[in-house]
Amino acid sequence: MTASRPDPAAVRTVTCAGTGVIGGGWVAYFLARGYDVVAWDPAPGAEERLRHLVDVAWPALTGLGLRGGASRDRLRYEPDLAKAVAETEFVQESAPEDLELKRRLLAEIDEATPLHVVISSSTSGYPMTDMQVKCAHPERTVVGHPFNPPYLIPLVEVVGGEQTDPAAVAWASEFFTVAGKSVITLEREVPGFIANRLQEALWREALHMIAAGEATVEQIDLSITDGPGLRWPVQGPMLTFHLAGGQGGMAHMLDHFGPSLKAPWTRLEAAELTTELRDDVVAGCEREAAGRSIDDLVAERDSGVIAVLRALGRA
Amino acid sequence: MTASRPDPAAVRTVTCAGTGVIGGGWVAYFLARGYDVVAWDPAPGAEERLRHLVDVAWPALTGLGLRGGASRDRLRYEPDLAKAVAETEFVQESAPEDLELKRRLLAEIDEATPLHVVISSSTSGYPMTDMQVKCAHPERTVVGHPFNPPYLIPLVEVVGGEQTDPAAVAWASEFFTVAGKSVITLEREVPGFIANRLQEALWREALHMIAAGEATVEQIDLSITDGPGLRWPVQGPMLTFHLAGGQGGMAHMLDHFGPSLKAPWTRLEAAELTTELRDDVVAGCEREAAGRSIDDLVAERDSGVIAVLRALGRA
Repeated sequence: MTASRPDPAAVRTVTCAGTGVIGGGWVAYFLARGYDVVAWDPAPGAEERLRHLVDVAWPALTGLGLRGGASRDRLRYEPDLAKAVAETEFVQESAPEDLELKRRLLAEIDEATPLHVVISSSTSGYPMTDMQVKCAHPERTVVGHPFNPPYLIPLVEVVGGEQTDPAAVAWASEFFTVAGKSVITLEREVPGFIANRLQEALWREALHMIAAGEATVEQIDLSITDGPGLRWPVQGPMLTFHLAGGQGGMAHMLDHFGPSLKAPWTRLEAAELTTELRDDVVAGCEREAAGRSIDDLVAERDSGVIAVLRALGRA
Repeated sequence: MTASRPDPAAVRTVTCAGTGVIGGGWVAYFLARGYDVVAWDPAPGAEERLRHLVDVAWPALTGLGLRGGASRDRLRYEPDLAKAVAETEFVQESAPEDLELKRRLLAEIDEATPLHVVISSSTSGYPMTDMQVKCAHPERTVVGHPFNPPYLIPLVEVVGGEQTDPAAVAWASEFFTVAGKSVITLEREVPGFIANRLQEALWREALHMIAAGEATVEQIDLSITDGPGLRWPVQGPMLTFHLAGGQGGMAHMLDHFGPSLKAPWTRLEAAELTTELRDDVVAGCEREAAGRSIDDLVAERDSGVIAVLRALGRA
């Protein structure tokens, strides 16, 4: 019989295993949110690099507002993995993206970590089903995929593997939410999760364009920073196209421009615009709009874009 | 012998032909930048809708800062196309995306507009080569593709067609720059230009994910607004990956993660990562960094993302 999981809101101590750019970013974030953080990384010089990373991030985190009690003094570097997880209440693994390495490390963490503790991986692409295979207790292993830098970008994508207990997924989602993150809980494993798939589609198209001499690196970046990128912190791609349909919204957009989906604008083949997909997308936009009219959404977008332009000194 | 083109900085009067969401946005923008604007649109009730659009946008434009002399009173609605262009110094066409309609309209505009005046189309996808075929003077027709809303998003993509005089492309790029836009001048016609290709790749991947039940509309939008979308107004996708490579930058990123480009993360087939493409991408990132170290770029990204978060009330 093991102890039951702690209340996600009562967690005080977390362990970060692996403290490179992503793991170190997690350390900075958890410290700023007032946790005791135990850090472990076997690389030579890792502690010094970690403390440097935290020091560099700290002014920004202070500016954004620390939680009560937050302090860099609450970071403890622990060279022994078993000791690093022995008294923790949550583990975030951020080892390099190497499947075999992650399998072995997760198994080691699993062996040394009290059974009631959830173990989360920062992997940006491996399904937990593939990573949890060597764990004696895979039921408490989840993916908690952050975005760089984890101390600033709110998104965390949470998803379990085949052997994961859905209760562990729910616990992790609640814990990240309590910790101040913006959480997407995936119902099923999708390679690359959600945001990375979208980001990768854009990145691949960009590489094709550069390879074909259609655009330079600088033009690609400028086309985003001065174009659609200004809208995306305010409204995502779906709501963006909801507004592109004018007063008719997404329904008009799909019914009117559906055929041009087939135009050879990207190397990515268009999805078949079935009635079902059309209805799903329209319904999703309407749920998201939650009663706000197109005019309301346009006003929100405009004030958001203006705020972004001003904030970046580009007004 | 025709009069030579005006100095782009001396232009005072522009004509907007077609005043829907995009064309009306152009009208609002040009008014805010202190131009006299002549508007034409054959749709019933177009003038009333246009004046409403301008009125709705005006507080935002005022907040961002009007140019000296800017006034809504400098909008003249003209129901006769020939009269609307007779004394103009620049024409921006924003008719619906219908190739035949644009061909006919551009030919009509061309016929009535003084020969020294550049005629620009807002088309979001048609190459000017295909649109200028009915023009008697196709040499002064260019694409000037804006982003919605044109009165807030700085980007304009400028490109000519096969029959366009490169001097007309250069003139349009200079005019838009003087008018306060952020201009990308394309060397060659690419269907969808640059930003739309990237945006469409993302949008198509999103539709595939919805169709496959891998994500909901809301999850897709949240994954962008709370994830990579927060970085993109600050640094585009190429610089984003330049930083993902740690101190080694894009070179390390491509050399280290190149193989994972082949991972099945999107429906878009990966570009072949040839040595040439690798070197082009690395060199482009270095040009863009312009001597700034990875640490400098990280600091810029972080302060930018923080400014965006604060501006949107999400800090």
